[in-house]
Amino acid sequence: MDAVVQYLRDHQAEHLDWARVICRIPSISTKPEHADDVRSAITWTHDLCERIGLTAAVHETGGHPVVVATHCEAAGAPTYLIYGHMDVQPEGDLSLWDADPFDPVVKDGKLICRGSADDKGQVLLHLRAVAAWLATEKRLPINVKFLIEGEEEIASPNLGPFLKDHADELACDHVIISDTGMYADGWPTITYGTRGLLYKEIRLFGPKHDLHSGSFGGTVANPANVLTELLASLHDADGRVTVDGFYNDVAEATAAEREQIRALPLDDAEYAANLGSPGIAGETGFSTNERRWIRPTLDINGIYGGFMQEGANTIVPKSAGAKVSMRLVPNQDGGKLSTAFDATIKARCPDTVRLEILNHGHADAYMAPLDSKPMQAARKALQEAFGREPAFIREGGSLPILPMFRQVLGADCLLIGFAGPNCNAHGPNENIVLEDVDCGAEATARLFKHLAT
Amino acid sequence: MDAVVQYLRDHQAEHLDWARVICRIPSISTKPEHADDVRSAITWTHDLCERIGLTAAVHETGGHPVVVATHCEAAGAPTYLIYGHMDVQPEGDLSLWDADPFDPVVKDGKLICRGSADDKGQVLLHLRAVAAWLATEKRLPINVKFLIEGEEEIASPNLGPFLKDHADELACDHVIISDTGMYADGWPTITYGTRGLLYKEIRLFGPKHDLHSGSFGGTVANPANVLTELLASLHDADGRVTVDGFYNDVAEATAAEREQIRALPLDDAEYAANLGSPGIAGETGFSTNERRWIRPTLDINGIYGGFMQEGANTIVPKSAGAKVSMRLVPNQDGGKLSTAFDATIKARCPDTVRLEILNHGHADAYMAPLDSKPMQAARKALQEAFGREPAFIREGGSLPILPMFRQVLGADCLLIGFAGPNCNAHGPNENIVLEDVDCGAEATARLFKHLAT
Repeated sequence: MDAVVQYLRDHQAEHLDWARVICRIPSISTKPEHADDVRSAITWTHDLCERIGLTAAVHETGGHPVVVATHCEAAGAPTYLIYGHMDVQPEGDLSLWDADPFDPVVKDGKLICRGSADDKGQVLLHLRAVAAWLATEKRLPINVKFLIEGEEEIASPNLGPFLKDHADELACDHVIISDTGMYADGWPTITYGTRGLLYKEIRLFGPKHDLHSGSFGGTVANPANVLTELLASLHDADGRVTVDGFYNDVAEATAAEREQIRALPLDDAEYAANLGSPGIAGETGFSTNERRWIRPTLDINGIYGGFMQEGANTIVPKSAGAKVSMRLVPNQDGGKLSTAFDATIKARCPDTVRLEILNHGHADAYMAPLDSKPMQAARKALQEAFGREPAFIREGGSLPILPMFRQVLGADCLLIGFAGPNCNAHGPNENIVLEDVDCGAEATARLFKHLAT
Repeated sequence: MDAVVQYLRDHQAEHLDWARVICRIPSISTKPEHADDVRSAITWTHDLCERIGLTAAVHETGGHPVVVATHCEAAGAPTYLIYGHMDVQPEGDLSLWDADPFDPVVKDGKLICRGSADDKGQVLLHLRAVAAWLATEKRLPINVKFLIEGEEEIASPNLGPFLKDHADELACDHVIISDTGMYADGWPTITYGTRGLLYKEIRLFGPKHDLHSGSFGGTVANPANVLTELLASLHDADGRVTVDGFYNDVAEATAAEREQIRALPLDDAEYAANLGSPGIAGETGFSTNERRWIRPTLDINGIYGGFMQEGANTIVPKSAGAKVSMRLVPNQDGGKLSTAFDATIKARCPDTVRLEILNHGHADAYMAPLDSKPMQAARKALQEAFGREPAFIREGGSLPILPMFRQVLGADCLLIGFAGPNCNAHGPNENIVLEDVDCGAEATARLFKHLAT
């Protein structure tokens, strides 16, 4: 192990150059005009995989290609699928960036550019670990299969079909993903659960066209007024969601888990200040981390209707609508709650407006088995590399690929992420702390060893 | 009187040609590029006034010009200011018009074009009456001062200053306006009251930028959620407005007035069907006409926040807002209620969001004295011309010029309108029924006589 770790240290600069090169490619999957760049990023990844000793192949899908790179020579050892993605979010508002998003800069110990944290920089950690093992030990202690795609930022529309079509080729005992964050800078973190999602849109229709609010106001239902009443009814005074049966199936977190979550340092005032919010808020009886990790929530994501420009216009709008999404926790069933949501809204909506509910899909929550061997191996590897016990957290967001891997490959996922809490993924000046990157590569190299035993 | 009426009948075709000519001018005051057209319409009106025997002058204002045309030779008789406007609304969506909005068409007994009802066609009624009197009797039984402006559709920004600057020249006993509608086709109508207006905008600010609703949802206040709660709180279960003290100063309609309003035919189902609304709605305990005429209301005119495009985006929006306007009834004080509204919202708004309230102005309600001599004269004139007792109604909209005339000139207003209930003012295929126009001109000519006695 010492030689592997030494190799990583000796090759820091070279490995950083990998990041500099791949991050120059604007592989923005959300923009069709960057399709060739996504392909270039996948091809570059293929070539790097081959160079470090993996057997790699680019596969076409219905959309952007994927690369599969394997090293399966550890007879009798378990097989791990390492998933990541080489596509990135658009750069967004360039005026908010301190430099060109696709011209990587190292400053204050951070690599700053689009993709540095999400997810190019994190994919490279694992390839560094593989390179170090193969260069020094000429072997890997486990069998690995890399699956690197180019559509994560557009919700991986072709990953499910690809997994199904290549289920044998990709068969594995467990999946490893580094696409999450650290609870604090320098604090290694294992994410063991994510929330699910149920996304709806409510549209209310009143008069056939906008009405003069003077001549007609007070005589027919105003869809915008009705909408606010419907939406306001979705929470009670304690901030609990009032969709019928919403909490029925919730797998309540254990007292032990809640205690562990509450033990994580979090200053509410500082948390709110960081977000620029006047204060924290949410369901009564739960701490801030509990509210975002173990509790289901309902948020209006967008609301619209009537005259939305500057100034004043006196109309009763003909229609109004809102996008409403719920984050679900383990054991809540998105399909069942979708039906419950519709029934709740229908029951509460007066017949003086016409109601339409659109579905924008749902995804399941995910909980990794906490006592799994990979989880314990990761704990050990992270402790050794960072010199600190890892934090165990959940993530409030949704990762539909996690239940997908479980369903198609029958494999659970280990989420070890190395993006700092201020990495600004998807935002301007996305960055990753280089010390975390180096420790992360070492942790990954050590993980390979622990996973084998 | 017979000669005057006969003259009107003999000159129908000629007078219709006036409308055809003036309605060809696209005097759209809301569009700066039509400034010359507004001026042309005012100049044309000036020339017509001179041609029929009035003494006319075009006056410049800070915006579009106005024309003042007088005939004040009835010594000892009262003086009436006849107000109207020659500017029009934009044509809107051309695809909804059956013909060019500025190429007048006569079809099914209606003149169809922009301005036919609002207000060119109605201004011409009065000029026809003047022409008939002066051509036959060589005199007017009263003194008249026409004040025709070109900015009504942009809320008459220069009318107040003009009135103040020309208060002596425009001094009068009463104002007559034909810019309202008829309760039904062929049913002459006197409008004796209008509602006031108080227009606000609520803006709520949460986090400094949109947040990922998964990672952060449930931890800080969502401004869109809070907004719906605030707005929903503005009505109680009976549809009454809950702004503190909202009803304190309301001048309740008398039992007699309510009885008169309820006696007007109105089929709720038909009313809702005409508006394309699934049903009527509003404050409990009041009929549909009462709700739009004698009751104050609160409507959301526009609501916005977060992701408003097609599809789904999972954010906690950084802000959300709504435009909210209230229609006020006599004796409610817009200024006082503006303060009450702000205080109500501030008291109910949680400190987890930052609140901003914008003012978009307020206007007073107006009630004409029901027992005035002009009102009785109009009743008689309308009855004679239409062969039917006029309907007495209020209007739910606001006409800020009414309290302005009262304030600056000390004169009350008589509102006799000849636009039919389906005239579609401001909309496509605006029209006026020619028979109502002819009866309206005769009624006006008769009104001059009754006003003199």
